Amino acid sequence: MSILVVGSVAYDNLETPAGRRERVLGGAATHFATAASFFATVHLIGVVGDDFEHAHIEFLKSRGVDLAGLKIVPGGKTFHWSGHYMNDINQAETLQTELGVFSTFDPELTEHHRERPYIFLANIHPELQLKVLSQIKNPTLVAMDTMNLWINTTRDTLQKVIERVGMIFVNDAEARLLTGCKNVSQAAHQIMEWGPKTVVIKRGEHGALVYNDEKIFMAPAVPLMTVTDPTGAGDTFAGGFLGYIARAGRVDDASIRRAAVCGSVMASFQVEDFGLERLKNLTRDEIDGRFRDLTEITRFDHMPVFV
Amino acid sequence: MSILVVGSVAYDNLETPAGRRERVLGGAATHFATAASFFATVHLIGVVGDDFEHAHIEFLKSRGVDLAGLKIVPGGKTFHWSGHYMNDINQAETLQTELGVFSTFDPELTEHHRERPYIFLANIHPELQLKVLSQIKNPTLVAMDTMNLWINTTRDTLQKVIERVGMIFVNDAEARLLTGCKNVSQAAHQIMEWGPKTVVIKRGEHGALVYNDEKIFMAPAVPLMTVTDPTGAGDTFAGGFLGYIARAGRVDDASIRRAAVCGSVMASFQVEDFGLERLKNLTRDEIDGRFRDLTEITRFDHMPVFV
Repeated sequence: MSILVVGSVAYDNLETPAGRRERVLGGAATHFATAASFFATVHLIGVVGDDFEHAHIEFLKSRGVDLAGLKIVPGGKTFHWSGHYMNDINQAETLQTELGVFSTFDPELTEHHRERPYIFLANIHPELQLKVLSQIKNPTLVAMDTMNLWINTTRDTLQKVIERVGMIFVNDAEARLLTGCKNVSQAAHQIMEWGPKTVVIKRGEHGALVYNDEKIFMAPAVPLMTVTDPTGAGDTFAGGFLGYIARAGRVDDASIRRAAVCGSVMASFQVEDFGLERLKNLTRDEIDGRFRDLTEITRFDHMPVFV
Repeated sequence: MSILVVGSVAYDNLETPAGRRERVLGGAATHFATAASFFATVHLIGVVGDDFEHAHIEFLKSRGVDLAGLKIVPGGKTFHWSGHYMNDINQAETLQTELGVFSTFDPELTEHHRERPYIFLANIHPELQLKVLSQIKNPTLVAMDTMNLWINTTRDTLQKVIERVGMIFVNDAEARLLTGCKNVSQAAHQIMEWGPKTVVIKRGEHGALVYNDEKIFMAPAVPLMTVTDPTGAGDTFAGGFLGYIARAGRVDDASIRRAAVCGSVMASFQVEDFGLERLKNLTRDEIDGRFRDLTEITRFDHMPVFV
């Protein structure tokens, strides 16, 4: 089954302890779509300027991503983000944000897009997320991401979005900011009370905690010896996660657990090189190999302790 | 089989968002011994003043802890630590440290102590850890803990201790400080090159990473809704870990994995109340129950992704 993702397509200037890169293909929707494309067909809704390179269109098409919903604005400039991770590889510091055509983003879905069963509202203004929600028809699952900016500035609208989705991806800090709960488990339960059946707390190198109804799953992260560029790791995680769900065609507890592990696997590859470089040559065998690594890393004998 | 622990026995004044407590029984050796006592016989080597309360002697004895090695100094004052966690429940801030008789601690082992198969060198001055190492005979496993103070001030001596133990417990920050590696996996491998076959990276609410030879195990933490007092959680983790190892009587990969989960289980109980309050009434059934919870929280279907 297929997934619709609505979000940013961007160019990034990146500096990490591993080096510098300019005009690297990035953006939440791009990272999500690339990761998810290993599992399912992805339809991308976004906007770029006519500076967007043909090679990048071709790359996304080669991944089977449907770009009918990618608007190219003549004379416009693609969203451009510059950031670095020089003080802490886990913490991006923004140097510059040039929204370009992204400031006029107004997602309009075709009839075909409206009927997709799986929807990912990447981190965009909550008003735009609501606008997408108003267009989609009878989805199996809508998942969303957000960020501290919207929590701090557009709280009421964001709340309306949260109340209408089935799944939300946030990191520890966002979960705490959103709820005022210092404890992440309390925060997750608070968010579930607002509506989402599933709350995914992303914890970077520590993996993720998935609160799904009454169940909790602790998704492991692959312990990596080197992290080259963490940009887009969260979106890649979500892409692997929802890609697996769409592939399985089920949103049950067992699928959600395996989906979270697939998210970790995809993110672990993604951070090994700048931008989408590592995913360009990634194979299904490699994905299966690292999935197997995570089964090994988390394995322990379940026999009771006192026997 | 039995465990020998050498370390501090203390009184703590604690302030956490959950409240304040004064003269709470604490100290690394106390926390370790209490947790380990659920799995094996523990021999404690430490020192207290004659202000040490009889009720606390009785408590440790009721847990089966052998106190033949606990020296009581007439007229002396027990080590006293005051700290709070008001800004961040994961980060202790020390208000006051009164070493008392602990400043004269000079661990001397009886013949019986010297022959214990499992040894835990809790966080004490590396010179004292070396002194214990020089007295023990043919142990099955020696494990150690340390802290940033010794890494910063007594590095050479600490290095000698590390080179002589089979297992070391450190947190993320200590592993990085010790090795100069920013990446925790790199740090763990560096430490293994110095000697220890097993490096346990404690990550608090994120669980622990156990590097054992060529294998890595990611031990989960129990996601808790409330943390009352994290003091001693690391020592309690180590106590559950080595307690299980001593009970199993094996230091193989399978035992180490189950041991780490037992460490997480014991720490999860310990932080639910101040000091050792929660462990006082803890039962083996409760330990087994939470061990079972962790099997459930980490469970996922291992079938390959692409089939």
